Amino acid sequence: MTDLKRMGEKAKAAGYELQKLGTEVKNRALLAVAEALCSHTGELLSANGQDIRAGEANGMHQGLIDRLRLTDGRIQAMAEGLRQVAGLPDPVGEVMETFQRPNGLLIEKRRVPLGVIGIIYESRPNVTADAFGLCFKAGNAVILKGGSDALNSNLAVTDVIRNSLKESGITPDAIQLIADTDRSVTGAFMKMNQYVDVLIPRGGAGLIRTVVENSTIPVIETGTGNCHVYVDRDADPDMAVKIILNAKTQRIGVCNACESLVIHEAVRETLLPKLAQALRSKHVEMRGDEGIREFVPDCVPAVQEDYGTEYLDYIISMKTVGSLEEAIAHINRYNTGHSECIVTENREAAERFLKEVDAACVYVNASTRFTDGFEFGFGAEIGISTQKLHARGPMGLRELTSYKYAVYGNGQTRG
Amino acid sequence: MTDLKRMGEKAKAAGYELQKLGTEVKNRALLAVAEALCSHTGELLSANGQDIRAGEANGMHQGLIDRLRLTDGRIQAMAEGLRQVAGLPDPVGEVMETFQRPNGLLIEKRRVPLGVIGIIYESRPNVTADAFGLCFKAGNAVILKGGSDALNSNLAVTDVIRNSLKESGITPDAIQLIADTDRSVTGAFMKMNQYVDVLIPRGGAGLIRTVVENSTIPVIETGTGNCHVYVDRDADPDMAVKIILNAKTQRIGVCNACESLVIHEAVRETLLPKLAQALRSKHVEMRGDEGIREFVPDCVPAVQEDYGTEYLDYIISMKTVGSLEEAIAHINRYNTGHSECIVTENREAAERFLKEVDAACVYVNASTRFTDGFEFGFGAEIGISTQKLHARGPMGLRELTSYKYAVYGNGQTRG
Repeated sequence: MTDLKRMGEKAKAAGYELQKLGTEVKNRALLAVAEALCSHTGELLSANGQDIRAGEANGMHQGLIDRLRLTDGRIQAMAEGLRQVAGLPDPVGEVMETFQRPNGLLIEKRRVPLGVIGIIYESRPNVTADAFGLCFKAGNAVILKGGSDALNSNLAVTDVIRNSLKESGITPDAIQLIADTDRSVTGAFMKMNQYVDVLIPRGGAGLIRTVVENSTIPVIETGTGNCHVYVDRDADPDMAVKIILNAKTQRIGVCNACESLVIHEAVRETLLPKLAQALRSKHVEMRGDEGIREFVPDCVPAVQEDYGTEYLDYIISMKTVGSLEEAIAHINRYNTGHSECIVTENREAAERFLKEVDAACVYVNASTRFTDGFEFGFGAEIGISTQKLHARGPMGLRELTSYKYAVYGNGQTRG
Repeated sequence: MTDLKRMGEKAKAAGYELQKLGTEVKNRALLAVAEALCSHTGELLSANGQDIRAGEANGMHQGLIDRLRLTDGRIQAMAEGLRQVAGLPDPVGEVMETFQRPNGLLIEKRRVPLGVIGIIYESRPNVTADAFGLCFKAGNAVILKGGSDALNSNLAVTDVIRNSLKESGITPDAIQLIADTDRSVTGAFMKMNQYVDVLIPRGGAGLIRTVVENSTIPVIETGTGNCHVYVDRDADPDMAVKIILNAKTQRIGVCNACESLVIHEAVRETLLPKLAQALRSKHVEMRGDEGIREFVPDCVPAVQEDYGTEYLDYIISMKTVGSLEEAIAHINRYNTGHSECIVTENREAAERFLKEVDAACVYVNASTRFTDGFEFGFGAEIGISTQKLHARGPMGLRELTSYKYAVYGNGQTRG
């Protein structure tokens, strides 16, 4: 069985080394890792081939096989991701605030690495390199536990990274992979709060729930998005149709896709015929209450469960409301704290929606699909936080840091 | 049995109400609660008397009885605390950042309440009012679970607050107290991640460990402090003695008191005789390694366990090191991430210590006793975080908030 305690100690020691590294050293190391991934494409594809064949032999679903598969292009993309991270500003060392106290103490709030980050993810080998790159640039050591179907691929990627780090004169324990596929090891990993500062699960709702329920390490919840678009009484119906169509169908299986519509009763007559036609043209199944079905004859009756469901599919639920207040209450009841949108020309309604809807990202007149680290200009993303502690919404490099207070005195004592 | 689900729903609904309140409304309500506590002093003392008598009958330790006791003065102090919180700036609504994307989206990062905060604490009735005041000012609803020995006192304080809020036209569910003393209720409370956004344990190491190990709600760990003072080879010995004496003995039972000294071997001869004399004069038992005992004949031999112990008593452990590196490694091995100090006149050594020691507050030439929300100028404190996620060090009003992204578009969709 994996010696998790030993891995934890090594990660903690590596974290202390990494926090001392300058930006240039980290960037050069990232570029070297990118090169190493490209020059070891053969080994990576060969290790991945073992996983793919085992997956096919076990009757793995075609979609999962696709996520598991590495190709020349995907390895290039992993390398390119690392090069981009090398080009981003280093968050570590930033002085966030400075204040002086009447007793003369000078206090600096400084951005520092979190230390050791744990990542539990499904069978997507590209996450191995992506997660390493972000954690490393922010000065953190990382312990990874990937899906067991991708074990050979993950081991190969990790080996290439560790060897490249060694060649750059950096501790290879900046990245460690738990190679044990026994579930009890994953359980024990989630209890390593003595060594791991934060645990980030990346994957479906089931994985995230398991981690939240079992971890003693602080967890950042990511990824579930039951996102709404509310069409206000003062909406531009054409803009509403355009936004809804984009939010629902531009990419179906992602957490920032729209799953549910809330429609002010006063706009139904002008909006719904156009909207239904647009959704039909994209083969989206509509499930609505009576107020919707009055104007959309082919709309399926919605049951209460529909309003709480993240379909990740060509299905959308639709709810009629009589007021902005009712819309906000409905959304606050069913949403997952991810991304919510109001379509309106009414500034007051927009401000109220922005203030009262409880979610990481709240939009006026724009698609929920913009909730993304790249779209927000962070240059990268480790995930989208749907909790309120520490980080909310897209998490880039800054969100992988903590802070400390550096206090300068000249002999002050407390009276 | 307490209907925790119902309490959770009420707290969540209250949180949505509180986030809408303006600063003036919140301040007036806090001042009214302060008045109400003073004008109900009789009822509060009477309820507290029941707890005190029960405690005495059960042979409760005198120190605990003292913490449990309310007096006229302590009720005045609770009220004064609320008045001070009313005078602090409101963190809610602050625009933390604004940025515009090339596609025209305008993104505002806005400070918002966390929502619902859970606090689990020991039998100190004053915490009931203090915690309410801070959570309320930051726009949060709070669910409290106090020590069962203080139940009558806590119920009385909570009643006064709830009635006063009602009179101010504010939902009384801004504060709810779990009145059930059954341990299984506390266990169930810690699993209410559907309703509670963060759980803050306030109390001893045992309470905090229980919460960390059992909660599915994100926890902020507070309060354990195995704090070190390192006397560098370039230290001013008189300043070192003054700082150590203050950090160790100014108040013994607090988390920012110094528990352990790390002494560079080169300063032993000049430092230790003076230091030992000063510590003796305050009746502090010294436990040191051989390098210390060479210069302090009455020093007790330290065992390894001493270096990991938060004594909260007139005892101090002492360790000799040969270098700054060794000092940093020792501190990073044994500290609890609270407060650490270097005494040195050497700027380079100071900067290295500040950078490499892993703790919330790192001091150069000042007592660790300054780690405190009031001393830092935050005007208040809900606790001192020793973890790296979300908040680190003294937590004031800002640390009881989260943020959201408000995104303004004019019909943007993702391509």
